Amino acid sequence: MAPKAVTLKQVAVAAGVSYQTVSKVLNGHKQVTPETAQRIASAVDALGYHPSYTARSLRTQRSLTIGYSWGPAPPGEANFILDQFLQNMFMAAEAHGYYLLCFPYHADPRQHLATYGALIDSHRVDGFVVSGIEYDDPRIRLLSERDFPFVAFGRSNPESRFPWIDVDGGAGIRAAMTHLIERGHRRIAALAWQANSRVGDNRMAGYFEALAEHGLELDPARIRRGPGTFDFGYQAASELLDLPEASRPTGLVALSDLTALGALRAVAQRGLRAGRDVAVTGFDDAPLVEYAAPALTTVRQPIAAIGQRLIARLLARITSGQQSEPLTELIAPQLMVRDSS
Amino acid sequence: MAPKAVTLKQVAVAAGVSYQTVSKVLNGHKQVTPETAQRIASAVDALGYHPSYTARSLRTQRSLTIGYSWGPAPPGEANFILDQFLQNMFMAAEAHGYYLLCFPYHADPRQHLATYGALIDSHRVDGFVVSGIEYDDPRIRLLSERDFPFVAFGRSNPESRFPWIDVDGGAGIRAAMTHLIERGHRRIAALAWQANSRVGDNRMAGYFEALAEHGLELDPARIRRGPGTFDFGYQAASELLDLPEASRPTGLVALSDLTALGALRAVAQRGLRAGRDVAVTGFDDAPLVEYAAPALTTVRQPIAAIGQRLIARLLARITSGQQSEPLTELIAPQLMVRDSS
Repeated sequence: MAPKAVTLKQVAVAAGVSYQTVSKVLNGHKQVTPETAQRIASAVDALGYHPSYTARSLRTQRSLTIGYSWGPAPPGEANFILDQFLQNMFMAAEAHGYYLLCFPYHADPRQHLATYGALIDSHRVDGFVVSGIEYDDPRIRLLSERDFPFVAFGRSNPESRFPWIDVDGGAGIRAAMTHLIERGHRRIAALAWQANSRVGDNRMAGYFEALAEHGLELDPARIRRGPGTFDFGYQAASELLDLPEASRPTGLVALSDLTALGALRAVAQRGLRAGRDVAVTGFDDAPLVEYAAPALTTVRQPIAAIGQRLIARLLARITSGQQSEPLTELIAPQLMVRDSS
Repeated sequence: MAPKAVTLKQVAVAAGVSYQTVSKVLNGHKQVTPETAQRIASAVDALGYHPSYTARSLRTQRSLTIGYSWGPAPPGEANFILDQFLQNMFMAAEAHGYYLLCFPYHADPRQHLATYGALIDSHRVDGFVVSGIEYDDPRIRLLSERDFPFVAFGRSNPESRFPWIDVDGGAGIRAAMTHLIERGHRRIAALAWQANSRVGDNRMAGYFEALAEHGLELDPARIRRGPGTFDFGYQAASELLDLPEASRPTGLVALSDLTALGALRAVAQRGLRAGRDVAVTGFDDAPLVEYAAPALTTVRQPIAAIGQRLIARLLARITSGQQSEPLTELIAPQLMVRDSS
């Protein structure tokens, strides 16, 4: 094991100053002469003093730790943005001496909430990042009631006020729709998620808005709902493409890339060509979709920037003790036009 | 903020026992009568006592935290097993009161090593999981020299002794080769990584072994090396498939799924059918490869079990202060036979 740690007292003796002086200088609280500062710095170097994290936590009453947990991707789906999201949060946190404490997702909501409570009660974290936010999200309620610092990646009910940053999924789907409409498409189907999914509802708002904006008919038969899987995309697109040609949609807007890839398969199987006979768009810009044949038009979330902003917002709240304004940020995603449309 | 925390002293007063008795009982160090244990438990419940993490760390000299950092996937590649790997480690750690402290990967090795040093020196973690192990890995050297608890996902130089768990990548590629040879293939090419990649060398050992075992010629022209990308797979397979039919390989064994998907594209572009005219295999069983057309035969790593074993091994080392035997574990992966072969 590592040798016994050097104490602040030993540093003080070596520098020929009081314990209080060293403590205050190292914590940035006291101005001293340049000579004294130099003596302390030399003693720190010579002895190899490293402040103990535990001692510093006791002193500052801060854990310098942010809690984060996320739900694993459901079967048949995949979290393509996880790596980039995490790395950007880690980097932004470390720049302020903070690290992320990651804890598992428990499918049982009571057990999952208990973990949040235990981490708060034991003072292991100074705040949380929460993601995958749903309507009436019990994590938002718990953290709001306890007035514990947190920031969410994602909105919840429109009326509930809490600090969040979200991608404007509606703007993303609206951009995909506008792109197809400008290319002459009039019958555009949506491969959507089950109703009452918070993220799905936000994205679908863009579908409805684009239709209304361009005076196009809203045909409920052109909205198919299911899980965000490849299989659902394949099935739903197959049914839509097998409609009589006069009513068959010429554009398929999917809420996820996997679903769009399933739709591409259905298109290819019918001897049609995506991008010429039928236009298909996805959402996420997952790795691999560039390599789909044809390359998939999709909506890219600025995930690096979101990770950095979440940490900056949370640390501002932790450090100042106050919620900064604006409380919420809606970030526009970017349409990546490729061959499939 | 949360109300002021209940102290151990208040619990002792409420239970009518000494501070020392409460402290020892809650830390599991002292047998008391069932009545006393019950009184303490009732006082804990009534007061809502939660042991402070910082106070417990001070007492036990443990941070109950495991450090982990990983390199982000290079451009054009993707880490498909990350989510499952992390979730399984988090769950195994939490079952023992441990959490993972995740820190960013720094491309500058000196900066990256400095983070390991700082986390050790400040007593923020009790041990590390390290992954993406290369030859002469400086993290292995640092942690070994400091005799600090760690366990690696991956081997390094054959002669270097340290605790690791690894997938037997050679066995995986050997299984893919055996599968192709049993189906009558004799000219099998490898879409490999640059030489002197530790993981790549381990996997390629299975290629060489299978050829030798079946008395097949080793033709250096059938070994193509490049990054683990889709584009490399597409390029390398294109060149191989454009050879005269008499020397053209009939099997393509790729070291990664993305590379295999690139090869599938090259096969399809030539009007050939994978699984009938040319057999293609990958490695990783990434999400999406089931949906490739045709579905990709690949090698699946038992990633959940590896995450759990890594944490169990590391916690045994932290708790006992000793390295348990065996020091190393090599786990066989599983060949998933699908339509592409």
